[in-house]
Amino acid sequence: MEIASRLAAILGEAAVITDRERMLDYLVDETASPVRPQPADEVVVARPASAQEVASLLRLANDEGIPVFPRGGGTGLCGGAVPTENGIVLSLERMNGIALDKDNLMATVEAGATLGDLMAKAEEAGLFFPPHPGDESAQIGGLVACNAGGSRAVKYGVMRSYVKGVEAVLPDGDILRLGGKLLKDNAGYDLMQLLIGSEGTLAVVTSVILRLFPPLGASATMVIPYEGRHDAIDSVPEILRSGVMPLAIEYVDRSTVEVSAANLGLEWPCRAGKAYLMVIVDGESVVVVRSHCQHIYEICAGRHALEPAVGETRKDQERVLKIRSNIYLALKGETADILDMAVPPASMGKLMDAVDDIATQFGVTIPMYGHAGDGNLHAHLIKDLARSGPSAVREAKTLIYKETVKLGGTITAEHGLGKTRVPDMHLSLDETKLALMRRIKKVFDPRGILNPGCAISPE
Amino acid sequence: MEIASRLAAILGEAAVITDRERMLDYLVDETASPVRPQPADEVVVARPASAQEVASLLRLANDEGIPVFPRGGGTGLCGGAVPTENGIVLSLERMNGIALDKDNLMATVEAGATLGDLMAKAEEAGLFFPPHPGDESAQIGGLVACNAGGSRAVKYGVMRSYVKGVEAVLPDGDILRLGGKLLKDNAGYDLMQLLIGSEGTLAVVTSVILRLFPPLGASATMVIPYEGRHDAIDSVPEILRSGVMPLAIEYVDRSTVEVSAANLGLEWPCRAGKAYLMVIVDGESVVVVRSHCQHIYEICAGRHALEPAVGETRKDQERVLKIRSNIYLALKGETADILDMAVPPASMGKLMDAVDDIATQFGVTIPMYGHAGDGNLHAHLIKDLARSGPSAVREAKTLIYKETVKLGGTITAEHGLGKTRVPDMHLSLDETKLALMRRIKKVFDPRGILNPGCAISPE
Repeated sequence: MEIASRLAAILGEAAVITDRERMLDYLVDETASPVRPQPADEVVVARPASAQEVASLLRLANDEGIPVFPRGGGTGLCGGAVPTENGIVLSLERMNGIALDKDNLMATVEAGATLGDLMAKAEEAGLFFPPHPGDESAQIGGLVACNAGGSRAVKYGVMRSYVKGVEAVLPDGDILRLGGKLLKDNAGYDLMQLLIGSEGTLAVVTSVILRLFPPLGASATMVIPYEGRHDAIDSVPEILRSGVMPLAIEYVDRSTVEVSAANLGLEWPCRAGKAYLMVIVDGESVVVVRSHCQHIYEICAGRHALEPAVGETRKDQERVLKIRSNIYLALKGETADILDMAVPPASMGKLMDAVDDIATQFGVTIPMYGHAGDGNLHAHLIKDLARSGPSAVREAKTLIYKETVKLGGTITAEHGLGKTRVPDMHLSLDETKLALMRRIKKVFDPRGILNPGCAISPE
Repeated sequence: MEIASRLAAILGEAAVITDRERMLDYLVDETASPVRPQPADEVVVARPASAQEVASLLRLANDEGIPVFPRGGGTGLCGGAVPTENGIVLSLERMNGIALDKDNLMATVEAGATLGDLMAKAEEAGLFFPPHPGDESAQIGGLVACNAGGSRAVKYGVMRSYVKGVEAVLPDGDILRLGGKLLKDNAGYDLMQLLIGSEGTLAVVTSVILRLFPPLGASATMVIPYEGRHDAIDSVPEILRSGVMPLAIEYVDRSTVEVSAANLGLEWPCRAGKAYLMVIVDGESVVVVRSHCQHIYEICAGRHALEPAVGETRKDQERVLKIRSNIYLALKGETADILDMAVPPASMGKLMDAVDDIATQFGVTIPMYGHAGDGNLHAHLIKDLARSGPSAVREAKTLIYKETVKLGGTITAEHGLGKTRVPDMHLSLDETKLALMRRIKKVFDPRGILNPGCAISPE
């Protein structure tokens, strides 16, 4: 392929992969295989080592009109990183530096550094990066490009809340440096905010500045069991109004969580109950944390919660988070598609009821769990749905999305539109919004080379 | 004026002001008069009562190519709301409804409701709106359009952090409804984030959904005196790293704060020291707050802080905040321009030294104070500078801005570019960024009718 040799001339031979066998991992992401888009046949993988190399690569691709698929850790769940057209997979993996600034509580992180690396480095420096968007092999550039969320977003927010600076390369090779080690910046339109969550379709994020926090003085993870789901979900607004703000409030049910625990060979800490809230609480001391836990438990007891399991050691807490984070993988074999709606937090119970009704119509059970503190529900459309007919997955999905929108919700809370949600995006985005987005796409990427197949095409 | 009668036909006679005497308050904002732009001669004020009326007005203005100047409470400090061309002042004052949603801890607030109204309504409902961007007569639409900051941003962030939904009208009359009562939403480009801080140049914000919080269990306002400024400023990163996150960390000095207190007929609670940190701390109980205060005082004592004054009653705390918030007004008579830089928080002392050096060059003192926890410094360029020559204000400003940028800072942290900072914006925004912004402006407002004279003209 002629483009491969031109890339090798820019980046060096070792930075370019052309052998299909060696690039298989670069052609997929974690999207459930029944809905995952097919990678194209003629793909070359390029692994630049600097923003300047990214700029040279993009300039070449832009001149030639060659599609470029920027790629982080490949942990996305809606096909955003899959190269669906012949072109270049741009992996940022070699750009993985992390520089901590303890005086400003910030980190300058190259796009290819993983979440796990950042968490470890921050901890070494006596600091803390609060959010936990699932898979720790996710890369920071991808987490920012996708505005990842995850469990620990209730108190401190999603990735967007942490991003204070972004370096990104435009298709014409110009390098944008937005924001900085700044907590306030109102100079002009906030292009940085526009890039966050744009899924690699406007520019390629090469480095970011993230805000860090002091380490948790103490924390605890409560697993609060209930016999009924509604009692669990209805406890959430009361917790949020109570004045104790947890890091995370997750909803899981027994059947789901036991599958995940078994898959890991671990044990879920509660035997009682059928539905659980998993609440992570922090505070400046063990005494304060225990008082927070007691306060939260009293609220939940008013909604018929049973005796909670409270993990205070790091090991106990990490085990529970690990079981929670593994649900997706444990169910993946049976999953046709995983949905990611958000509704106003107080309406999450209504959405779950609606999903149950839809499941009943199709004669199946749809496993659900989610970030209850954020109103963010994940539902696994299981492969078994197909027994109702070849279009049953699509029909169930559309019904669920319509209920979501009726409740004032969005079809994607934290995973993004990627490529798999393009057919449904009109449910969340009317033509006025889509037209603006297409024109913004054109401002940044007039030839449409960046991540084609994702939602927005340049107008 | 023909346009006035066409507006009256749409909005009703009472909604349109054409008499110059009656519209004087609509022609200015709080910008210091020496730099405030001159209002144009042929202006009509329109006060629509609904998003639909805003849409009709904009459609008319867009068809005819008439400039429209959207206006909130007129509390801006850089001329953003001044109608500098013949056209329409669009005041949102009649759209001032507030609907609270206690279950979701959200409020739906029309653009013309004031900050004071929102604070009061939230309190009535047992909730709390944390940020305090100075003047409580500011209107919510303006606060969102300008992404206002203020004192209480350290723990919970600036306006952007609270905005979950925006209704805004485009120049062609289309109504955008972005976000919702949602804590996570990743469907497409985040147009809402783009509108926040766009200063009425992309669309007219008519209503917003804001996140609220539980009320502070208890709070205290500490005034911590120091003999020297550096000790005060150098305490800030240590406080931020300590694990106790204050609502606010303000820096003021004695000379400034005494002018403000005298102007109000109030007394500043500290007689000792020349430099002060004002730290607002919250917690779930008085006991917790006192322990936080003790912890912070011990950090500061290590930097030679003197005995602090701690206000625990609401009255005492409000008095201190009032004196702090009044500094701008107290100094205004002597002020030629008020600057609003941000640097990485740990560099705020360096910036203050640089400003002092520049002041010395011009043989004056430049009063400074600011949001030290955010690295956000306000400096008053005093009228006395003009004794060094007619361009001394401009020269001093340029020198200060260049030092700011050298320290990795921005020329505007929270006030925005408005109209008065347009000549300096290239210091914070290179041509690549400006070109993107001009093209984004064109996407939303192709005829350039919205707030012309503000930074960005459509390309």
